[in-house]
Amino acid sequence: MSAEPLDRPIEDLVPELRAGRLSPVALVEAAFERIRLCDGRLQSFVHVSQSALDDARAAAREIGEGRWKGPLHGIPIAVKDNYLTCDMPTRAGTSVPDITFPQEDSNAVARLRAAGAILIGKTRLHEFAWGTVTPPTRNPWNLDRVPGGSSGGSGAAVMAGLASAALGSDTGGSIRIPASLCGTVGLKPTFGRIGRSGIVPHSWSLDHAGPLTRTVGDAALLLGALAGPDPGDPACPDRPVPDYTAALGQSLKGLRIGVCRNHFFGRNQTDVESAVETAIGDLAAAGATIRDFEIPNLEYGLGAIFAIELSSSTAYHDVSLRAGLAPGFAPDVRTLIEIGRLVTGPDYLKAEQFRRVLIDDFRTAFEEIDAIVTPATPLTAWAHDATTVEIAGGPESVLAASWRLTYPFNLTGMPAISVPCGFDREGMPIGLQIAAKAFDEAMVLRVAHAYEQSHDWRTRRPQL
Amino acid sequence: MSAEPLDRPIEDLVPELRAGRLSPVALVEAAFERIRLCDGRLQSFVHVSQSALDDARAAAREIGEGRWKGPLHGIPIAVKDNYLTCDMPTRAGTSVPDITFPQEDSNAVARLRAAGAILIGKTRLHEFAWGTVTPPTRNPWNLDRVPGGSSGGSGAAVMAGLASAALGSDTGGSIRIPASLCGTVGLKPTFGRIGRSGIVPHSWSLDHAGPLTRTVGDAALLLGALAGPDPGDPACPDRPVPDYTAALGQSLKGLRIGVCRNHFFGRNQTDVESAVETAIGDLAAAGATIRDFEIPNLEYGLGAIFAIELSSSTAYHDVSLRAGLAPGFAPDVRTLIEIGRLVTGPDYLKAEQFRRVLIDDFRTAFEEIDAIVTPATPLTAWAHDATTVEIAGGPESVLAASWRLTYPFNLTGMPAISVPCGFDREGMPIGLQIAAKAFDEAMVLRVAHAYEQSHDWRTRRPQL
Repeated sequence: MSAEPLDRPIEDLVPELRAGRLSPVALVEAAFERIRLCDGRLQSFVHVSQSALDDARAAAREIGEGRWKGPLHGIPIAVKDNYLTCDMPTRAGTSVPDITFPQEDSNAVARLRAAGAILIGKTRLHEFAWGTVTPPTRNPWNLDRVPGGSSGGSGAAVMAGLASAALGSDTGGSIRIPASLCGTVGLKPTFGRIGRSGIVPHSWSLDHAGPLTRTVGDAALLLGALAGPDPGDPACPDRPVPDYTAALGQSLKGLRIGVCRNHFFGRNQTDVESAVETAIGDLAAAGATIRDFEIPNLEYGLGAIFAIELSSSTAYHDVSLRAGLAPGFAPDVRTLIEIGRLVTGPDYLKAEQFRRVLIDDFRTAFEEIDAIVTPATPLTAWAHDATTVEIAGGPESVLAASWRLTYPFNLTGMPAISVPCGFDREGMPIGLQIAAKAFDEAMVLRVAHAYEQSHDWRTRRPQL
Repeated sequence: MSAEPLDRPIEDLVPELRAGRLSPVALVEAAFERIRLCDGRLQSFVHVSQSALDDARAAAREIGEGRWKGPLHGIPIAVKDNYLTCDMPTRAGTSVPDITFPQEDSNAVARLRAAGAILIGKTRLHEFAWGTVTPPTRNPWNLDRVPGGSSGGSGAAVMAGLASAALGSDTGGSIRIPASLCGTVGLKPTFGRIGRSGIVPHSWSLDHAGPLTRTVGDAALLLGALAGPDPGDPACPDRPVPDYTAALGQSLKGLRIGVCRNHFFGRNQTDVESAVETAIGDLAAAGATIRDFEIPNLEYGLGAIFAIELSSSTAYHDVSLRAGLAPGFAPDVRTLIEIGRLVTGPDYLKAEQFRRVLIDDFRTAFEEIDAIVTPATPLTAWAHDATTVEIAGGPESVLAASWRLTYPFNLTGMPAISVPCGFDREGMPIGLQIAAKAFDEAMVLRVAHAYEQSHDWRTRRPQL
């Protein structure tokens, strides 16, 4: 059985699956075959499902009997290992044996199953989603490079065709960073759009669930299945879910696309900055009006998100710290979780007040624009052993640089996507970030899809 | 001119004012005369208005010309000195000269003025509303006793008839505690019911504005004028304001009154506990059904509110601390503001999580009850020099004891009132606290009014 269907987007597989020309069993077998062939080098999966083939056979029966559940029916999907699953263990990237998690389905996983998707395994994450490296997972484009993180396993698995799509989670950029570095699409919807019950928490007020996919259309399909009320997540209201595929294929004519000239530009790798400027020109050529603007208070954003993220994460892990389990954490994660104790309550509150200022600043900006376009990351995938990178003439820590352009949309809760927009001189993918107003995922998808249609970077594929 | 009208509730004055039989000028002159006679001993005012008599003359003209603004037109009202006022300075109880406040009207003050009220002066508070003593203000019932706090000046002024009503603010009990200790009515409405823009902040997520009045009916009149949208307070939505006077005079028949037997009972002064038990019996005799219940998690409440209050207050005062102004604060307040730095961000977040549990616990309880009745304070007014009191056989700090029964309704944001329910063996007033679901102020007023009608403790008055 050829693995070829896993290189194709879900949108293309749907008619074949529905017509019986392609079997979910063949899809899952192809995924398992690719995992066998490649994942020894990639290390993107931490667990492969024992029941996926049975699930695929059941899906094949259902489809054959005309009980079609929709566009995800029979599609092999991987799940970041911080989503609880009833049929697979969850480790959230930690090797501390005393930290265990219930074996039950998270909201998002239950929604995928209800939509007919076949969950083929759990992907690796940076421990507790607290980092952008995801060791020891490798980047499919260059095994010496990192896949990004924290959803690095999901990014690598989707890019390498080990799954048709994967779930990620995004607290400061953890979906968009691996999407940018691996060359997939990565969508972080609005805060509260996808319910997070059953995801191991990182920072309650910053955590988002979302998909990594091969195309923008696939992101729309997954969002449609994942969005909706989650009684277990107080941040997830019962708000109507539009048909996100309706946003695809619309022209950009008349749209006002904002380019935030401070913070997001002037401190990116040369190839990243020029690829994004080219993309902005392409959007203008496609009919959009480009408007430069500034969000001056963004310079205080890093301090604010660190105060919130450290406080929240340490509040969650405090029970483990008190139990003396810290030495079992990876050194980088242990440091972050321990220094969270040093953030004061007053500092936490000042960070929350700054967040409100930032939300208001962006709201004002959106009176004049419909979407924002930025680089997704200021750098492409870096070497596994790099801790600092040279950007715009000066050294910067990879941790600081990697999420510099993504975290503003976690602080503000606005939807944002990363779509491929080319490759740097070393052949590593570059990500274009597109954001919109809260709950305007349709706008994000519309702009991203229009861009993708004219620049299909998927014709280039990693050699594994 | 006799001061007698200031001993009568606003409800009784309204027809006389409207008919021209009583003049706003006479009312303000009576208030000023009482202030001159008594406030040297009480020390409830920190500033007396220079423009109130002009305002009263204007009100008299308006009423004479038939331009009646409603039941507060021409009524002399005092304002706690943490509400900004355009015609009087604001000090928020501090004597630090480098801390200054704008001279402009707060939302609540502007609303009172729009309703025709005459603002006669600013009342003393515990510095920055951070305490329950309000030195050097004295209790009108016994000058050796404290008036409670932090709105101690408002409680003393209303009880002594120096104003028809007064504004207070309540972060952990600062309206209801002086109401209980001085024998007035004190209403803390639902979080967000009265906009707080222009009140010097103490703790954003716990601060409430509200009135101290002579009667429950007067509290309904003031709430009607004060409630409504405040664009300057993000916590204050544009939500319809009912006619709160409609709740008055309704029978208690069929109402289910809950008595929370843990936390609120078993650790009160004997006279307080027996007065409240008698009041519960009276409510039952008036037709209400009494239901005992428990809120087990309340034992963790004090730690939670302290973490939130200390963090928020220190975040606000941090600029003063950094400027080296701490030595100018009162020692007790300085300690609280400085130790706020020691609350960690993770502890703050755990406190917020506990708050959510408590809100859910109360929401569940309210499926079986319509209102909650408790003592307002476990003790009556204590001596000025007391730092600990004997309660139920053991010593307790007055600070800890004074707000023990009020703060749960700040953490949960539910409306609560203190109404007089008798006197202890030393002649000091006892307060009955009545609470209801969020935005059900009508229920609070209904139960309090029904109780008040059958037990008018106002026939007894302090001798000054």
